[in-house]
Amino acid sequence: MRADSIKIVGTGLIGTSLGLALARQGVTAELADTSKANLRLAIEYGAGRESSEEPQLVIVCVPPDLTAEVVAQELRKHPGAIVSDTASVKSEIYSRVLDLAPEHAGRYVGSHPMAGREKSGPGSARADLFFARPWVITSTTESKSDAIDLLKDVALRIGALPISMSPKQHDEAVALVSHLPQLVASALAARLIDGQASQLDLTGQGLRDTTRIAASDPTLWVQILSQNASEVTPLISALRLELQELEQALAGLDQPGALAKVHSLLERGNTGISRIPGKHGGKFVDYQQLTIVIDDSPGSLASLLAFIGDIGVNIEDLKLEHSPGAPIGLVEIQVDPASVELLAKQLVDNGWRIV
Amino acid sequence: MRADSIKIVGTGLIGTSLGLALARQGVTAELADTSKANLRLAIEYGAGRESSEEPQLVIVCVPPDLTAEVVAQELRKHPGAIVSDTASVKSEIYSRVLDLAPEHAGRYVGSHPMAGREKSGPGSARADLFFARPWVITSTTESKSDAIDLLKDVALRIGALPISMSPKQHDEAVALVSHLPQLVASALAARLIDGQASQLDLTGQGLRDTTRIAASDPTLWVQILSQNASEVTPLISALRLELQELEQALAGLDQPGALAKVHSLLERGNTGISRIPGKHGGKFVDYQQLTIVIDDSPGSLASLLAFIGDIGVNIEDLKLEHSPGAPIGLVEIQVDPASVELLAKQLVDNGWRIV
Repeated sequence: MRADSIKIVGTGLIGTSLGLALARQGVTAELADTSKANLRLAIEYGAGRESSEEPQLVIVCVPPDLTAEVVAQELRKHPGAIVSDTASVKSEIYSRVLDLAPEHAGRYVGSHPMAGREKSGPGSARADLFFARPWVITSTTESKSDAIDLLKDVALRIGALPISMSPKQHDEAVALVSHLPQLVASALAARLIDGQASQLDLTGQGLRDTTRIAASDPTLWVQILSQNASEVTPLISALRLELQELEQALAGLDQPGALAKVHSLLERGNTGISRIPGKHGGKFVDYQQLTIVIDDSPGSLASLLAFIGDIGVNIEDLKLEHSPGAPIGLVEIQVDPASVELLAKQLVDNGWRIV
Repeated sequence: MRADSIKIVGTGLIGTSLGLALARQGVTAELADTSKANLRLAIEYGAGRESSEEPQLVIVCVPPDLTAEVVAQELRKHPGAIVSDTASVKSEIYSRVLDLAPEHAGRYVGSHPMAGREKSGPGSARADLFFARPWVITSTTESKSDAIDLLKDVALRIGALPISMSPKQHDEAVALVSHLPQLVASALAARLIDGQASQLDLTGQGLRDTTRIAASDPTLWVQILSQNASEVTPLISALRLELQELEQALAGLDQPGALAKVHSLLERGNTGISRIPGKHGGKFVDYQQLTIVIDDSPGSLASLLAFIGDIGVNIEDLKLEHSPGAPIGLVEIQVDPASVELLAKQLVDNGWRIV
């Protein structure tokens, strides 16, 4: 099943990115937004045109607190259409849609593309935002199978990876992999308010990484968390108890077993992190890394990449590790495992240094 | 004051990187390690030669638990030398050195280069590990001023940024910016052990970043934390109380003020993160970012960089944001603010797309 006319309601980061991704597949989305400024910007970016036709599929991309109401409106407005949404919580929205528009609920299927940025608005949109990212489709026994198929097709067309779950399974999963980390990062960053500037001058990459998402929008997150409080609360509780035990162990290091407790937490941290699938969805794509030393001169990176390009190897990911002013840089590239040996040999044979 | 003969005891990541950094400045360090394999590898890497001469300065780069003893040994072995160390805790080591070698303590100055990697051993060493990074020198009233000057000179010579603090000030600062984040990341990652694989499949960049340092070595960290327990414990306690309040707020969202509490935590997280100085030491260097769209074809990044190289602009940092298989990539570069306008104009004039 294919949807040829798709309406996107809400042209923020997600809605506009979705429009751009569809445009690349030759589908011109119909766009709607209560903010005329956002709508105009999204259209200028090429995310679609103003809505006019009767759509087959409506995707609601508005903040979580508004989602159920807008979904219900769209279900009524377009009695022939399938309606979905992209909010990052699912159970509560589903039950509110059931309340607001029970007679239309079969045409509603929730979804959640697992993609986003700290920046928001149409100006931050990217056509490849959903590429190779999971797109959770939360169907229930009420959902029409057409509805699920239509949404799956959209996800696949823009390169996302559709995953089916119930709303409850989804909310449990994001409580663990998204909501808990957000709260922990915020709580950790909040501790910095009391830090002296001379202390913060010693900040390294560890603190930067652990707190990066603490820059997220509080208003959006209050909406998300308040709709998923029942799933998040027990996780916070378990983490808090863990910290409490650690605190006791560190406060009584002379007690038997205290050091072992600290060691156990750190070791379980090792185990926990090893369970995260590799980058880019892990199980789907598995690239191999090569690190090459280059001079810090304009053009040295260019000549390395030109060399790799001449061999015909595509670079899937690249990071330059380089301290300003340092005489060398380290280029970390991710390439197809099938080409990595040949590439490494060619590089070394031609005088490049691999570390 | 300059040290012309420097002995490095311990050729792991830090000792070997230090040797490499000195070698680049024309100083051949004298290396010592109880592990013959590490020592040999460090020498092969060019970090120095086996120790034979009487050194002016000894820098002890061994695990925190061994540091005080090795410092005391070196103070006795080289009665004319200044001795320092690079362990990431300072107060306890200082008081143990005072106990072990009170008559030599004036020749000891502690230090802590704020640099490291999750990987360890000489094989992970990098000559630029310390470049543009703070190097804390923890002097006390006992410290000879020569000792401080000698160490400061070494830090400056390899491009690090010497910062003076007392051992206590240092330990308070790292408790906040390094030890607390480590424990929080480990505790968060430990929660993943109970997660289902289907839940972890939804992992995004947020969880990856917040838990990255949970991969660190538990044995090393038990040593660090047990030497800084008195500074870390109150911070864990404050964070735990914060989580407890949050838990209560989320468990009783219908109570007056509950949502405001959640919002406040998220907002304080925003405030806290804004206090972290910018990348590369922030106040020292301030680059500007340009994001350029390229095609996903071998050579397209090379031709962009060749173009930038031809203009003569040096790229200080580069990141390729690219989903595998996506038809475009986004190249984020950091350049000198003085060249950014010219560069942007030249890029656009020549058909490159800036976002």
